[in-house]
Amino acid sequence: MNHSGESSVHPRVTGVVELAHGSGGRRMHELLERIFYRHLDNPWLRRQDDQACFPVSSGRMVMTTDSHVVTPLFFPGGDIGSLAVHGTVNDIAMAGARPLYLSAGFILEEGFPLEDLERIVASMGMAARDAGVAVITGDTKVVRRGQADGCYINTSGIGVVADAIDISGSRARVGDKVIVSGTLGEHGIAIMASRENLDFVGDIVSDSAALHTLVARMLEVCTDIHCLRDPTRGGLSAVLNELCQQSRVGILLDEQHIPVREPVRAVCELLGLDALNIACEGRLVAIVPSLHASTIVDAMRSHPLGCDAAIIGEVVEDPRQLVFMRTTMGGIRLVDWLSSDPLPRIC
Amino acid sequence: MNHSGESSVHPRVTGVVELAHGSGGRRMHELLERIFYRHLDNPWLRRQDDQACFPVSSGRMVMTTDSHVVTPLFFPGGDIGSLAVHGTVNDIAMAGARPLYLSAGFILEEGFPLEDLERIVASMGMAARDAGVAVITGDTKVVRRGQADGCYINTSGIGVVADAIDISGSRARVGDKVIVSGTLGEHGIAIMASRENLDFVGDIVSDSAALHTLVARMLEVCTDIHCLRDPTRGGLSAVLNELCQQSRVGILLDEQHIPVREPVRAVCELLGLDALNIACEGRLVAIVPSLHASTIVDAMRSHPLGCDAAIIGEVVEDPRQLVFMRTTMGGIRLVDWLSSDPLPRIC
Repeated sequence: MNHSGESSVHPRVTGVVELAHGSGGRRMHELLERIFYRHLDNPWLRRQDDQACFPVSSGRMVMTTDSHVVTPLFFPGGDIGSLAVHGTVNDIAMAGARPLYLSAGFILEEGFPLEDLERIVASMGMAARDAGVAVITGDTKVVRRGQADGCYINTSGIGVVADAIDISGSRARVGDKVIVSGTLGEHGIAIMASRENLDFVGDIVSDSAALHTLVARMLEVCTDIHCLRDPTRGGLSAVLNELCQQSRVGILLDEQHIPVREPVRAVCELLGLDALNIACEGRLVAIVPSLHASTIVDAMRSHPLGCDAAIIGEVVEDPRQLVFMRTTMGGIRLVDWLSSDPLPRIC
Repeated sequence: MNHSGESSVHPRVTGVVELAHGSGGRRMHELLERIFYRHLDNPWLRRQDDQACFPVSSGRMVMTTDSHVVTPLFFPGGDIGSLAVHGTVNDIAMAGARPLYLSAGFILEEGFPLEDLERIVASMGMAARDAGVAVITGDTKVVRRGQADGCYINTSGIGVVADAIDISGSRARVGDKVIVSGTLGEHGIAIMASRENLDFVGDIVSDSAALHTLVARMLEVCTDIHCLRDPTRGGLSAVLNELCQQSRVGILLDEQHIPVREPVRAVCELLGLDALNIACEGRLVAIVPSLHASTIVDAMRSHPLGCDAAIIGEVVEDPRQLVFMRTTMGGIRLVDWLSSDPLPRIC
């Protein structure tokens, strides 16, 4: 079976989404056959039941869910289809788990081009195969024009966690090191640039990627990772403030070690944004025992998605549970948690 | 902790959903605390991680997903919150599985009243507790005014299947009996009536309900149930046509045994609808070996959700894979699969 959808024998899909495509009737089944089963093909979907069944071994599993409403649907470095896979794979990976299965729930606006839908589902299929997961069950709803913005996708997912692993936002301990896996803010800036037609932003592309193999590499050298989280909405500052509250600690960052690519830094400066608040979709933050920090960073740097990994700070005692940063100018500033996001609908 | 939300010490939630509530920042966390954690409270949500972890025994699991876009959000006999729980619990139950955990992904329109959101989440919490499942992980996105219709909810879910059970749409065999668990069409007609202000419809309320305990009762008397499906979008006719195609058989129904409440029959006649095409959210169709059919129906009738259970037809050989019905007038008519639904957005 041809998975890429590029040179398939099926005729190219044309037309637009109609209410009948969400009806449970013939037209919905045609849509499933022509787009969904074709690009996400696997034995579970092919059974066409309303649920998918799979064997499990005894142990621990994780479950997660994410709805994706990113705009625009296609952006430099990805689209809502690949993002929906990466977002959910990453939430599974942030528990140190191996992702297994995803579900996909589409909410489509009447009039949405079927060609765009096919591009999105094909991209979702490719991202899932690249990540070694299968989209085993799905659902499609259609709402009238003006009741959605083209296409929204919910992906839920499950994975398995090895016995020795206990990763949670509440496990940061005073003295632990804070690591980021790479440069910050590319996803948010790429989305903003394509939304606002900011040509001067140049070649910034989304960092959207599945991080589970990077996490597996980290766990190979140290199973005692305390916290893992991907800095999506709210960026690094939101994630670190969350972790401080969950673990009842403070964090002191060192600005000079926080990796930010020069074009992102320039755009942020120009627009008055702080890269620490901008979403990533292919980066992670780890809080790890000080003793193992440099070993973990070395392991991360040997992985393509971790080559810019760096220790950027440490966990400190702070009853106020705040995040501070030693700036490159030598001062100390509060890294606050914004009450809202400067860039809505980035994921 | 007070679960009903009625006499809680928390102040009543007022105001409307703002973009900041979907930001990943402080405002989102306030919303989570004030509404979601409060009404769906359980140890997994309280950990506030981006995923929930749970132990599993070796065996088989099922996963399913459903997005809910019903309009109106509140209707006689339920609301989008309870419906989102029932819909996903039922898709799990239709594999003969015991539902365990749900996820909930909310897409909210800017300006949506927080009071309505609280009603919905409280109803979801109550439906989940009644069904013995926990909503262990969630996600909230906010889109601008005019980019959604108030509130959409995706619920995904997982459950466990006992060893002996093998239920699938492809297992209908010639000679099997077709059973429905109760009267048809109440959900769809109740939704339509409240949408169109049809006062003459009277006391028809949605049949929305969680069917897993009814399925468990059926499996107690016969583990060899071949097919189970809930006739939601497209109603009984869509489900039976699907099953015929999956199993490559035909079905012959007997109209006089198909249970339809008198007010539903009257409304359908008046509006030119066919109750066989109208969605239910608390009924199931079973295809079972002829030998066990009456035992299964007796078991169903001993359950509050199966008291109107009836054998309504049988599986026949038919290379065209069609559904026919012997009418009360003595004729035979084709029960076709509509190409679209007469009532969009009923779930």
